[in-house]
Amino acid sequence: MAIASAARRAYPSGMSVNVAICQTEGRFADPDAGLELLAQETAAAASAGADLLVLPELFLTGYNLGPDRARALAMNCEGPRIERARAVAREAGIALCFGFPEQVGDEVANSAVLIDEVGAVRLIYRKAHLFGDVDRGMFGVTGDRFPVIAWRGLSLGIAICYDIEFPETARMMALAGADLVLVPTALMPPYYVVADALVPARAYENQIYLAYANHCGSEEGLDYIGHSSICGPDGAVLAKAGTAPTRLMAKIDLAHLAEVRRRDPLLADRRPSLYGPIAS
Amino acid sequence: MAIASAARRAYPSGMSVNVAICQTEGRFADPDAGLELLAQETAAAASAGADLLVLPELFLTGYNLGPDRARALAMNCEGPRIERARAVAREAGIALCFGFPEQVGDEVANSAVLIDEVGAVRLIYRKAHLFGDVDRGMFGVTGDRFPVIAWRGLSLGIAICYDIEFPETARMMALAGADLVLVPTALMPPYYVVADALVPARAYENQIYLAYANHCGSEEGLDYIGHSSICGPDGAVLAKAGTAPTRLMAKIDLAHLAEVRRRDPLLADRRPSLYGPIAS
Repeated sequence: MAIASAARRAYPSGMSVNVAICQTEGRFADPDAGLELLAQETAAAASAGADLLVLPELFLTGYNLGPDRARALAMNCEGPRIERARAVAREAGIALCFGFPEQVGDEVANSAVLIDEVGAVRLIYRKAHLFGDVDRGMFGVTGDRFPVIAWRGLSLGIAICYDIEFPETARMMALAGADLVLVPTALMPPYYVVADALVPARAYENQIYLAYANHCGSEEGLDYIGHSSICGPDGAVLAKAGTAPTRLMAKIDLAHLAEVRRRDPLLADRRPSLYGPIAS
Repeated sequence: MAIASAARRAYPSGMSVNVAICQTEGRFADPDAGLELLAQETAAAASAGADLLVLPELFLTGYNLGPDRARALAMNCEGPRIERARAVAREAGIALCFGFPEQVGDEVANSAVLIDEVGAVRLIYRKAHLFGDVDRGMFGVTGDRFPVIAWRGLSLGIAICYDIEFPETARMMALAGADLVLVPTALMPPYYVVADALVPARAYENQIYLAYANHCGSEEGLDYIGHSSICGPDGAVLAKAGTAPTRLMAKIDLAHLAEVRRRDPLLADRRPSLYGPIAS
């Protein structure tokens, strides 16, 4: 099984990368201004020593667009705006993960992209669990898988906001060998328990690093609570924001990850033969 | 599916029960003294208005017994000690849930029993996920199912300690319709994240009440961190202990449970067809 090979993997000793988060009010319904902010924040993160910068759900446009603006602002992965973001990553020499409304045929998806430090699109993830009328009004297509890719010696997946509230999402990625899960989000009141308790719990139970990047401020009457964080594979909160715009950074340390997994074989102690109803 | 019927259930309006927790140092390796403490704590909980009292993992004997004492102290569900506990429940007129080493053929299980307010044994749960050498040294048999029973108008399951760290455990019970999960535990340092973050996260993500009853103090060099709690279906921490012996109580309110499930259809928003690898 995937996890067995992950648990046995020989981690390069001393290997680490720095993951940064930008918790921001964004530039609502103005993707060109969003790209400018992306360039500024990417330069700041690179100066601070980040290898990867994670930004919120639908960062390029804002989240609370409504159906018409979501459709009008939806962008193609081959189009000029993602092309510009790729140039931003390449020029700064760091990887980027952020959300954007993706044009998929005639529909729009709530997507996030991972662009690596040479500007290559490495992963497009489409939100699998839509949240209420606000998501369902905007997005006609969802993802149906939880891919994990290799980057800089670690295995990495993306979940978007509500996705992470389902324990199955991060579990699927952990079973596929994920070391790090990136979560662009747009978390509102009263869901403090998600940012403050569920996010470190997900990291602990799956023995993964987790970077949870929220909006702050408000958009068209929808408030965001901030409380972005980076959590370690033992559930430690390595960096945490309050409610204001904030930059966070923490080290993803594969030696520490291996040590945590040696101490507590949580994934090996699972009893999947008992869990049938979860998948039926 | 089970959860669909649970979500549609008509809850009796205003229906509630009071659940209490006894966080205690127990009576190590002395089950007769453990029964005396059980009687005292049951009387105190009944006086305070509790309908159900939850006590820690292996409450009757203490947890850190080692293989020989676990075998020597293991008890049969039909034997005099469980019979005495049934009398305690019946005399106080409240239900009890506590852990004990159960004799199962030639083996010992890490079990917990639910005895109702008329002294009937309603559920014996055997720990499904054994924790490290300390559990594996003592227990040769595990549970292989996650039963949910009806009691006082609600659906109730039991998990023991390490079980709850696997999101699958509470998920299985929620999918079977659980409203309340009782968790006798023996949580040690450094696992504060379990008591402080993972427990409210489990309650939130499954929209269940959760009563997590830990030991405090120490036994033969093993320390326990307390931090017992009762959490609500929106992840709210309704009652929480520190590290000292403590009695907690909170109301389990089915009208509130129904309201939370109406507001956020978290269980209905699952996508089980995507979750195959979790059960294989």
